Amino acid sequence: MDRVYNFSAGPATLPEEVLQRAREEMLDWHGSGMSVMEMSHRSKWFEEIIKQAEADLRELMNIPSNYKVLFLQGGAWTQFAMVPLNLMKKGKADYVNSGYWSKKAIGEARKFGKVNVVASSEDANFSYIPELYPETFSKDADYFYITTNNTIYGTRYTKLPDTGNVPLVADMSSNILSEVYDVTKFGLIFAGAQKNMGPAGVVVVIVREDLIAEVNPEVPTMLQYKVHAENNSLFNTPPCYSIYVCGLVFQWLKKLGGVPEMQKINEEKAKILYDFIDNSNMFKGTAKKEDRSLMNVTFITGNKDLDAKFVKEAEEHGLVNLKGHRSVGGMRASIYNAMPVEGVKKLVEFMKEFEARNKIEV
Amino acid sequence: MDRVYNFSAGPATLPEEVLQRAREEMLDWHGSGMSVMEMSHRSKWFEEIIKQAEADLRELMNIPSNYKVLFLQGGAWTQFAMVPLNLMKKGKADYVNSGYWSKKAIGEARKFGKVNVVASSEDANFSYIPELYPETFSKDADYFYITTNNTIYGTRYTKLPDTGNVPLVADMSSNILSEVYDVTKFGLIFAGAQKNMGPAGVVVVIVREDLIAEVNPEVPTMLQYKVHAENNSLFNTPPCYSIYVCGLVFQWLKKLGGVPEMQKINEEKAKILYDFIDNSNMFKGTAKKEDRSLMNVTFITGNKDLDAKFVKEAEEHGLVNLKGHRSVGGMRASIYNAMPVEGVKKLVEFMKEFEARNKIEV
Repeated sequence: MDRVYNFSAGPATLPEEVLQRAREEMLDWHGSGMSVMEMSHRSKWFEEIIKQAEADLRELMNIPSNYKVLFLQGGAWTQFAMVPLNLMKKGKADYVNSGYWSKKAIGEARKFGKVNVVASSEDANFSYIPELYPETFSKDADYFYITTNNTIYGTRYTKLPDTGNVPLVADMSSNILSEVYDVTKFGLIFAGAQKNMGPAGVVVVIVREDLIAEVNPEVPTMLQYKVHAENNSLFNTPPCYSIYVCGLVFQWLKKLGGVPEMQKINEEKAKILYDFIDNSNMFKGTAKKEDRSLMNVTFITGNKDLDAKFVKEAEEHGLVNLKGHRSVGGMRASIYNAMPVEGVKKLVEFMKEFEARNKIEV
Repeated sequence: MDRVYNFSAGPATLPEEVLQRAREEMLDWHGSGMSVMEMSHRSKWFEEIIKQAEADLRELMNIPSNYKVLFLQGGAWTQFAMVPLNLMKKGKADYVNSGYWSKKAIGEARKFGKVNVVASSEDANFSYIPELYPETFSKDADYFYITTNNTIYGTRYTKLPDTGNVPLVADMSSNILSEVYDVTKFGLIFAGAQKNMGPAGVVVVIVREDLIAEVNPEVPTMLQYKVHAENNSLFNTPPCYSIYVCGLVFQWLKKLGGVPEMQKINEEKAKILYDFIDNSNMFKGTAKKEDRSLMNVTFITGNKDLDAKFVKEAEEHGLVNLKGHRSVGGMRASIYNAMPVEGVKKLVEFMKEFEARNKIEV
């Protein structure tokens, strides 16, 4: 077996140790005589799995007890509707348009209330995080919405907006657990698992409980946070196996030293790649330097054919999924938590070698 | 490793051969160098996996080309809302109340339109399928809703109602692929995977495409069948790994001879168990004989302490999850497709031995 270095933006690479553990436990979890896939979600075993996953996530992110942690289905897209359906009580929210996913969230929210776009970086193809001026924020908004990391464009917020009493809501799908965040600064955080937590099919919601105390009963039951919170994510059959794998990832991360240690490694990985790009004559970063993501590194050669050649040859060297999103072009190296430093070093080595070999063409 | 016979009502036992294959492919799917959990849902590999799963399901159920096959998230509970949100165009539907899940579906549908309960078996704790009289059906209903198999009570429809031009909608969660159904008799079929198809976290929807051509744009995007149909279940990141495992189950079922062959085996398994129950002095079936499920066999001793003793001792013999649902009590043996005949024989052997050993107490 020959494992590749997988730079996919998501679903993304998982720690090999986690996959090995899942393989070992596939037919018999801890002497239960069955796979986690075969367990009743009401069994003592699965209860142990989901409770441990929640406890580990609480520990990793230092989540206060007045926040609920939910494991739901439907990905970020379902959250784009659930957030306004549950939180828009006065019918108005502020959104920052920092990329494709923010824009989708804005479109969805407009079905349910008034959306005020306080700032946008669409003028420069979302290559930066827009400056935010608190005097432009709506004082009577139900919440203020941001996307902490923009997967497609390789940008991230390096400081959070001060929204005062208006709860801050964050789509943290592509950088949850990658750097230290103070959860108390947020009203609600959600994140699809398939980048830094586990397999696709589960989305984690961390929400201050006072925000979900009341809900319009006409909202579909499955879209009510309150229902899931009251039932500890076991209102209906949850995506058990995906939650189990997330739990294994949380344990891996704890063993590694938790989020502060992970952040150091992520900063190191990003530095290796950005430093090389900044000193290269061939490769150029596409995101504004100050707003660069630690998770998604976007770059181009400036020549589409050369970009394509790079992606193809990298793949032949076991460095896969480096093609950039069609809206940015070029390349994107997603270096989530599970991407080892060695993978980034191998990528830089290959970039160096490719640059030397293709000098004439630039 | 000592695998048990797992009679759980769901999530339920999976074919051991499927789990072994999943284990083998865990770190490297078909030479891709990565786990299915790590694949982009837009990759050529995952496209192959989901297309093959759909093609196999179409073949197994003989699904005509004017029906869409969707792999969605949110389980049956989300379908309870999606069905009325998408199909209730005139605002009215007929429902049969044949158990806990039908009742939940009725409650959810009432949020979105007028529900006419045409028949109910609640008077006898849902121990039978109510007789249906076409003259009581609403001629102007948008659809007619049934639950083909009632997991908790161990009942199933042995003939489908003739609803004329009104589309028949079926929750087939607990008996899809267990017996031959003529898909053309239905407007829409849905089924959570976690009984006869795979792990929890994916729900299959089979829907006649003319029924989902139009949708109210105010419905949350993720709850619109049309959106998922137009994008071949890849509108957003689907629950990739769960779909992959379902695909392995479909291949296992094809190799075994398909649904007609599976039905024979299921009839044989159910007969072994029901025959024993009908001849026992200790155990009694709780469902009306003519409406007995092939998937969930419910029975009692008539003595709660003896029931508890049976469940406990069975577990010690590797026959697990036999406790009945709290609303029926006693025992329930769920003998889905993946339960081998041998497991049912072992159960009957144990029941026989238990009965002999506990004669005095009855």
